[in-house]
Amino acid sequence: MRRVSGENDPDGVLKLLGGAIRRARSECQMSQEALADLAEIDRSHMGRIERGERNVTILNLRKIAKSFDKTMAQLLEDAQI
Amino acid sequence: MRRVSGENDPDGVLKLLGGAIRRARSECQMSQEALADLAEIDRSHMGRIERGERNVTILNLRKIAKSFDKTMAQLLEDAQI
Repeated sequence: MRRVSGENDPDGVLKLLGGAIRRARSECQMSQEALADLAEIDRSHMGRIERGERNVTILNLRKIAKSFDKTMAQLLEDAQI
Repeated sequence: MRRVSGENDPDGVLKLLGGAIRRARSECQMSQEALADLAEIDRSHMGRIERGERNVTILNLRKIAKSFDKTMAQLLEDAQI
């Protein structure tokens, strides 16, 4: 997946989403590695998603949300985006 | 962006999302071309997103949702995914 520069994400949406994922993960007391494995996402890619460095796709976002027993809409609302 | 086969999307999430985008567009009486131009997404790519043939990214989904004055969460709820 292509990298995303700040220029492509002027509103910081990816950082807000990454932050919401990190908070949901902390609430579930889940390590980043455990989340990556549960969501079947490469561990280093998962780290970049949490840091807002990747333009996450819907199918990956769904797998992440399901790992927390949340809907994608809930996760996006938590991120306030 | 990579193509998505049915195997990668067993629950048909992309088709449901594409359908919700198409319905929102119809409600706004907007052509697919007008939406693509407004969201700054390539016209043929927009067609594939509506047909559920592309794994749409968050930044593109946000541009699409904003074109309808909706949040991404609203669009995902409309899609029931």
